Amino acid sequence: MIIQLKKNIDQSQKEAIVKKVNSFKYESNEVKTQKGTYLIGIGTKEFDIRQIGNMPGIADIHIVSDSYKLVSKKWKVDPTVIDLGDGVTIGHGDLAIMAGPCSIEGEEQIIETVAHLKSQGIKIMRGGVYKPRSSPYAFRGMGIDGLKLWYKHAKAAGLKIITEVMQVSQIEPMLEYVDVFQVGARNTQNFNLLDALGQVDKAVMIKRGISGTIDELLYSAEYVFSGGNEKLILCERGIRTYEKASRNTLDLNAIPILKEKTHFPVVSDPSHGIGIRRHVESMALASIMAGADGVIYETHANPAKAFSDGQQTLDFKESEQIIRKMRATHELLSSF
Amino acid sequence: MIIQLKKNIDQSQKEAIVKKVNSFKYESNEVKTQKGTYLIGIGTKEFDIRQIGNMPGIADIHIVSDSYKLVSKKWKVDPTVIDLGDGVTIGHGDLAIMAGPCSIEGEEQIIETVAHLKSQGIKIMRGGVYKPRSSPYAFRGMGIDGLKLWYKHAKAAGLKIITEVMQVSQIEPMLEYVDVFQVGARNTQNFNLLDALGQVDKAVMIKRGISGTIDELLYSAEYVFSGGNEKLILCERGIRTYEKASRNTLDLNAIPILKEKTHFPVVSDPSHGIGIRRHVESMALASIMAGADGVIYETHANPAKAFSDGQQTLDFKESEQIIRKMRATHELLSSF
Amino acid sequence: MIIQLKKNIDQSQKEAIVKKVNSFKYESNEVKTQKGTYLIGIGTKEFDIRQIGNMPGIADIHIVSDSYKLVSKKWKVDPTVIDLGDGVTIGHGDLAIMAGPCSIEGEEQIIETVAHLKSQGIKIMRGGVYKPRSSPYAFRGMGIDGLKLWYKHAKAAGLKIITEVMQVSQIEPMLEYVDVFQVGARNTQNFNLLDALGQVDKAVMIKRGISGTIDELLYSAEYVFSGGNEKLILCERGIRTYEKASRNTLDLNAIPILKEKTHFPVVSDPSHGIGIRRHVESMALASIMAGADGVIYETHANPAKAFSDGQQTLDFKESEQIIRKMRATHELLSSF
Amino acid sequence: MIIQLKKNIDQSQKEAIVKKVNSFKYESNEVKTQKGTYLIGIGTKEFDIRQIGNMPGIADIHIVSDSYKLVSKKWKVDPTVIDLGDGVTIGHGDLAIMAGPCSIEGEEQIIETVAHLKSQGIKIMRGGVYKPRSSPYAFRGMGIDGLKLWYKHAKAAGLKIITEVMQVSQIEPMLEYVDVFQVGARNTQNFNLLDALGQVDKAVMIKRGISGTIDELLYSAEYVFSGGNEKLILCERGIRTYEKASRNTLDLNAIPILKEKTHFPVVSDPSHGIGIRRHVESMALASIMAGADGVIYETHANPAKAFSDGQQTLDFKESEQIIRKMRATHELLSSF
Repeated sequence: MIIQLKKNIDQSQKEAIVKKVNSFKYESNEVKTQKGTYLIGIGTKEFDIRQIGNMPGIADIHIVSDSYKLVSKKWKVDPTVIDLGDGVTIGHGDLAIMAGPCSIEGEEQIIETVAHLKSQGIKIMRGGVYKPRSSPYAFRGMGIDGLKLWYKHAKAAGLKIITEVMQVSQIEPMLEYVDVFQVGARNTQNFNLLDALGQVDKAVMIKRGISGTIDELLYSAEYVFSGGNEKLILCERGIRTYEKASRNTLDLNAIPILKEKTHFPVVSDPSHGIGIRRHVESMALASIMAGADGVIYETHANPAKAFSDGQQTLDFKESEQIIRKMRATHELLSSF
Repeated sequence: MIIQLKKNIDQSQKEAIVKKVNSFKYESNEVKTQKGTYLIGIGTKEFDIRQIGNMPGIADIHIVSDSYKLVSKKWKVDPTVIDLGDGVTIGHGDLAIMAGPCSIEGEEQIIETVAHLKSQGIKIMRGGVYKPRSSPYAFRGMGIDGLKLWYKHAKAAGLKIITEVMQVSQIEPMLEYVDVFQVGARNTQNFNLLDALGQVDKAVMIKRGISGTIDELLYSAEYVFSGGNEKLILCERGIRTYEKASRNTLDLNAIPILKEKTHFPVVSDPSHGIGIRRHVESMALASIMAGADGVIYETHANPAKAFSDGQQTLDFKESEQIIRKMRATHELLSSF
Repeated sequence: MIIQLKKNIDQSQKEAIVKKVNSFKYESNEVKTQKGTYLIGIGTKEFDIRQIGNMPGIADIHIVSDSYKLVSKKWKVDPTVIDLGDGVTIGHGDLAIMAGPCSIEGEEQIIETVAHLKSQGIKIMRGGVYKPRSSPYAFRGMGIDGLKLWYKHAKAAGLKIITEVMQVSQIEPMLEYVDVFQVGARNTQNFNLLDALGQVDKAVMIKRGISGTIDELLYSAEYVFSGGNEKLILCERGIRTYEKASRNTLDLNAIPILKEKTHFPVVSDPSHGIGIRRHVESMALASIMAGADGVIYETHANPAKAFSDGQQTLDFKESEQIIRKMRATHELLSSF
Repeated sequence: MIIQLKKNIDQSQKEAIVKKVNSFKYESNEVKTQKGTYLIGIGTKEFDIRQIGNMPGIADIHIVSDSYKLVSKKWKVDPTVIDLGDGVTIGHGDLAIMAGPCSIEGEEQIIETVAHLKSQGIKIMRGGVYKPRSSPYAFRGMGIDGLKLWYKHAKAAGLKIITEVMQVSQIEPMLEYVDVFQVGARNTQNFNLLDALGQVDKAVMIKRGISGTIDELLYSAEYVFSGGNEKLILCERGIRTYEKASRNTLDLNAIPILKEKTHFPVVSDPSHGIGIRRHVESMALASIMAGADGVIYETHANPAKAFSDGQQTLDFKESEQIIRKMRATHELLSSF
């Protein structure tokens, strides 16, 4: 049960509602976000919500049978648009394209990539400054200094930044320079990180876990929302299966299923999904036709020299081509 | 190593070639199909094929590093077109659409479906007369009588028939009435069935195993080809993963990967793949954008009353719509 | 619902029962096996079985809520013992050990193996004469002649034979020489083969599918039983997962779960399960402690020269050691 | 390459070694732990290590072909024993039994459990005070106050404490009260947490990821070791597969494989593994026979009333029985 409270509700009204909710053996959790205040009632008993619905201070009330609540489309039917400012939005019927290198490697690489994206009309740049690596001896990214350098050039070019945050203590120093915090596939169920991102007024894109279920991804989004942040994007990036011909199994089934279950935008990551450079285009176009609101992919001036993920990274010529085809594909789907 | 023999080769020439092949510690397997005769050399030693290449009776010779040979694109770069006669082809750059019910249920259902497909310009009708069922007590299909009934109406309407064959002893009685034998996901590695289908001059569509690898699917195709039949189609139909939000995980990654590995057409089955009626369209369109040569899906005048698979079957109105969109999608991809 | 009929039931009594069963909207399937005759009622309505229970001709009646019926422990609580004759049984509280090579290769190998098993008091010899192989160019086994040769020596030594049958047409020629027909992991859902094995009065061991569920294995057993053969053994042999450090993931969880669900004996195959020679012993002992009624494993005088599966095959010294330890482990478990 | 440095090495000697290592195109990482100082050389070129081996300051040098180094058995053949003090060790040929509730719920529950474990001679108590939960609305544990309460009673009874740490900021406050920090299956690749645990002088038990590979588990251990902590324990707790008859698929294959790859102790968690109370015993005994150095399981005075995981938790009578049988099983294995 989601009870949306009026902005001008007073404390005694709120207490009366909580008391009423508890009287039905429902626990009540208050959630305060950028956009409003909610009481989430968790319980199993059926009752007539009209007994609550007309209490003073309530703007709206919904029964949500899913066990995640605030992210469910059963409550909010209209798609939620994520607004990054300066006219850059995700989920508005436009196609959100996010591109850039796996790792931020240095100023020259940043300048080249920014120029490429700008020339293509792309508004969001991806890149990693904190890199999760299986081996402790591998390159772990340029860190906060890399982010600041990147920010300088991105801001000048009017590009928004999406980058991975790996732990709670990084949020504060990154905050000023980031437009979308990305939660990586290894952190989808890092609940402390999700809690902390709930307290930030920046968009958060959560990647599906390495072998995460669709429901677990929705629960992780519920963590961030119930922590106070309703600027959420979900990302399919391939799951782990027995098949080894692709790096991961990009699960495009998840796209229409997620779009049906949640009001938040859904993005696909074909680079990590299939993990094979020459097939990234096919999977990007297929993702759009499956209904994705956006595509995030890796591009680099010289993939063979990239610090990481070169095998799945497009060069700028391939990037130009995929952008053109993605836009045409999205246009066709919109015409249906 | 694949040695393509000349049509007019004589026995002594052939023996000389086999002897030469054996002299390099290669086993030689003779394969005779509808289209030609091949010697498949299996071995690991490297040698200069020019030592064989100019022997009399040889039309062409190729080293194939894959462990499947005849189905590999390393040998035959051009796509193979499967010709079902009367101008109906699969793999020729056109989109092959195959539609029909899960099970053939009776004459009325056949007539309705034939009329629907004809009105949409569809040329290939799917349907099951032998049904693999987990439980021995479930409906197992109308059998050969159902096939004959179906054939009568399909022939009259100029429709080609694709239907599943489950065991060797069914091939002979079915032969006259079938245009494409389908090998189901539970029989992908039924090697005796594959051997037997190698001896038939009808097209064979092999579905990927329930948790079959892409390589295993190619090996299964190699069985049929090396048995003597090079009219092959491969079909992605979803694999078994931990995710239960979809019936199977339709693995669209397999489409560009298969298209790169083999010269045979690749078809997608979104109905069994995602297994949810309202998402079949998204997955069908995504399949085409991923590069599928065709789509096979389930449709029924009244899905709610279908004997089997109703939950993933489109009604005729939905079928009309998906056909229109699939064609537009294929047209866009062809324009790139 | 399982209705066990009296041996002396007459036709009119049977018809009366079927009519009664149908009156509750249950379909009735008659099953006649080596041991008795059953009517299997398939339906969903709840009713008081006493309305049927006292009709003449009925020996016993049970409601079975599982969707498999005859193999369920909900019907038959006592474990079923499979009697291979000459005092050799499976499932009687003794540990059934089955050992031998992957493939039968020739007379010398047969003689060596028979001698080894006899010296260790082993009563059941495994070996393949029809080999399912991914590649059509690989060794496919010695066939029926190999079986006859093997039979000659096994019979002389008092050994029972378990070997894989791959298709319906092999059953008849193999019948005289085989004590247990093995259905391989690629044929677990080859329903025609299961049907045909239902009509044979020999034991059948069904391996779990390559990625088969536990329920699917039980359904496959139901096929054989409902076809008329209640001499069944189930075998866990490893499932396909993402983990590649082992050949398969031997799923020992399946052992206590199967033992709880069915009255038939459950056997473990650690050789195919983990697929690594030096770890076969650990998995064999673990299988016994998990509750397996038997273990089937591969042994060869010289594993390095085996035609197939050498990497997971024990030599005779290792075989001796594993037998000794398996017996001690089984003894300990029995003492609890 | 692992270079073990002498305790009395001086700075100029160390620099000379690093210079030499770099001269072979190897990166050098210095690792300082409770037990010693190491240089880890990461590179691919082959060279004769005797060129380094006799430099002053070097105690020992090993080439390790695995990509994880310090945790590899290729470097350290003898098993590493984890000493928790007061004679409590893990990995010394004894069986380490760790038992207790899923969640610490309150003082009465702590007292009951402590009494039960003491009466059985168990030395290590498990329990959760920080609980990772899919839903943000679920009980998340008693936190640090619960831990302090637990510590008071455990210390008095001479019990060691193993409990999960979920994030870096919890380490410091927990440090005094914990004997073994547990890294949960959702945090196996939380690299920041692993880094931080490398700086702590307490044992760390890392659980295999929800769908983690064996190699990833070893890499995660390498993180902690290379961070400075070589008191490590690895834990198999079940992986995610398509099979839903068990909660997870406890992968006992991992036990002999891990024991062969690493010198650290390996523990099995049958409670989370199979997740079904009545089958926990079978999987515990099987784990021991597969070679586990220890077993961790859930027990509660009244599982039906446990705050979490009741369906897989043993009552004290079952716990007594499993302890007795586990010890007998371990004794048998030791006698082989």
